[in-house]
Order: sequence, then structure tokens, then C-alpha cells
Amino acid sequence: MKTFRREIWMNIPKRRAFVNITSEVEGALAESGIREGLVLVNAMHISASVFINDDESGLHHDYEQWLEKLAPHAPVDQYRHNDTGEDNADAHLKRQVMGREVVVAVTGGKLDFGPWEQIFYGEFDGRRKKRVLVKIIGE
Amino acid sequence: MKTFRREIWMNIPKRRAFVNITSEVEGALAESGIREGLVLVNAMHISASVFINDDESGLHHDYEQWLEKLAPHAPVDQYRHNDTGEDNADAHLKRQVMGREVVVAVTGGKLDFGPWEQIFYGEFDGRRKKRVLVKIIGE
Amino acid sequence: MKTFRREIWMNIPKRRAFVNITSEVEGALAESGIREGLVLVNAMHISASVFINDDESGLHHDYEQWLEKLAPHAPVDQYRHNDTGEDNADAHLKRQVMGREVVVAVTGGKLDFGPWEQIFYGEFDGRRKKRVLVKIIGE
Repeated sequence: MKTFRREIWMNIPKRRAFVNITSEVEGALAESGIREGLVLVNAMHISASVFINDDESGLHHDYEQWLEKLAPHAPVDQYRHNDTGEDNADAHLKRQVMGREVVVAVTGGKLDFGPWEQIFYGEFDGRRKKRVLVKIIGE
Repeated sequence: MKTFRREIWMNIPKRRAFVNITSEVEGALAESGIREGLVLVNAMHISASVFINDDESGLHHDYEQWLEKLAPHAPVDQYRHNDTGEDNADAHLKRQVMGREVVVAVTGGKLDFGPWEQIFYGEFDGRRKKRVLVKIIGE
Repeated sequence: MKTFRREIWMNIPKRRAFVNITSEVEGALAESGIREGLVLVNAMHISASVFINDDESGLHHDYEQWLEKLAPHAPVDQYRHNDTGEDNADAHLKRQVMGREVVVAVTGGKLDFGPWEQIFYGEFDGRRKKRVLVKIIGE
């Protein structure tokens, strides 16, 4: 069994954004030499997500609006987590809807994807350095 | 290490439905001969889910109602994704709540499940052929 | 390839609670002797979650309030699942938001975590014995 580990560093200049990281994950897979197995891709921070969906800007706008409706940022004093001096409680909620991680099959050295699957980093409390972990196991 | 790959094809005649695919996954596991490891089961399409819950029709009715409340289908012009000519933006939102994939332990050649766990395909934009991927790794 | 399996038993004295199970998972990993691979941690019951987030009591209060707003427990007769004699339909909904499972990388014999990641059991229908499964594969 072989394993491979790679960190992808992010530094999003605003509070919230979605970034396509598919090519970085594909690059890690190619470097690993692993042909059959599983890839885990997860946010290493608890106010961010990794998820798979469509690379379509209208949809990303819809996600932004929808998550803000389900878990509004303001007023910040509606959340007890923000009593600690943070203002990011909503980011911890939004991240649960979108998820922490994805697990993707590796077949024939490629990400075993359907026609429109792309991997995204979802930032909900940016303006600082954060990391995504790529861990590949297989042979 | 052994790996095994199977696609399960779906063609749901209506927009939304939940389908129990546990026996198909068990069949793939039996065929694989893998006794210890992990099974990944994921929707290959981004307006569908794979999740684990109860095979109880009342609950499925509740999921349908609840998801429609959290992410309504109509009016379709409330979503920017639908400006592309689609009418399925809500399906991309509902799929995030229910999830893309499950990872299940394999122990002694069986899905290592609690008493009520069953695997479902959740369709949110049907009336066309779609696929579920089963990838098993282990030995 | 090595595999290791451990059940963690829970018996939460109230309906809902969040319990940090990180040290139990770390204990299982240490006992397994596995240095590189993946850990799956999942609820074996369909009205409970395993998720990764912050060990901060204010945030847990916020999750409780927020999940109750998204999927209220009462009135119980709003859910068809409860026609079966149960009163836990809301628990099956809350669990979908928070998730069934997490998959964590193992690197150098440790859980490969970012600075604040902790593993929680989320109980949404307690007052009875339930289990969490830890399955580790690697070498």
C-alpha cells in the first residue's frame, strides 16, 4: 500500500468564496503514482468546507445567498460563540451544510468522476491563511 | 490490497425520489471478495445524493417536505443558476443537505452497519439516466 | 494492509447533546499500530451524527438552537415518521445536516488534524445505548 500527503494553502482576501481546487488534487494524484485507491480531501479549518458540485458562477451565487439565509452572519450577537470575541459563528454553521471533506475514488490513476464533478474549497471566514489536506491511499 | 469498482445505473421517472440501493452495494461487496476495508458509495451527478438513513416511507415523505422548505424548487427564477436554461438549482442545494457520498466499513465480508442503517440514492432532478459509483478497497 | 475496529458506546441521559470523542479515537489509533492510512468514524444509529468542529460550549449552544430552528422537534405530529409511534423524526433531519461520519487521514501514527479540529458525537434522540464505529485501514 502507498500513501501520499499534500497540503494546499489558501488565503482568500474576503470573508466568503468558492475556489475550484480540482487541478491541485489531480496534480497531487499524478505525483503520488497511485493508480487504484481513495483520495480524502478535507478542510483543516473548522470554518471552511471541501465539497463537490458544479463550476458555475450562478450556482455559487445561489449557494452564497442560500447559506446566508439558513445561517445569517448578522446580527453577530445572536450567536453565543461570538461572545468569545469571534464574529464567525455563522461560518461554523455554514460549513456543516456544505461539509468538511470529500472522498473520491481513484481508478486507472484518475479521479473517478461523473461528467460535472469538480472539487471546491468553500471559505466562510477568510482573510487569513488556511489549509486543505489531500491524503491518498492505494497502490 | 484489492480494489473493486461497480456502477449502479438509475433512471428515476419523476423529479425527486429516494431509492434503497443497499442490496446492490452488498452484491458488489460479495463479488469483490474483500473481507476487510472500506466501501465508498457516491452519486456521480451533482444534483443527486447518496446517504444512509431509515427505510421508512413516512420519513421519506418528511425529507421531501423539509428539503422543499429549505430549498424550494419554485419560483425557478429565484436562482441565478437557472438563468443558464436549467430549472434544477434547488436540486444542487438539496443535494448538499443530504450529502454526495457515504463511506462504510467492511468487516468480515459484510457492510459493518448498525441495526437500521440502509443506503439510499436521493434523486432531486430525475427523468434521465444517472450513475452511482461503488468503490471498494481492502483485502 | 492492516485494519482495526473499535466500537465506542454512548448512553446520553437527555435527548440531545454533543460529546467530544477525539481521545477515544486517538486511543483506538494508538492501539491499532497503524502509521499511515485512513480512519472512518461513523454513528451506527440513524438519529445521531459524527462530525468535526470546535470544542467551544457557545458554539454547541448555537448548533442546538440552529438545528431546532431548521428541524423543530415539536409539534411532533407535523412529521409522518412520527405516525409510526416515534417522536424522533426531527432527529433524522438534524442528523443529515450534521452528517453521519468523518474520514480522517492518519500520518505518522497521528490523526492528521488542523489546529482546532475535534471529533464529536451528536446525539439527537438519546436516553438509550448507542454506538460509534471506528474503522482504521492502512499500515
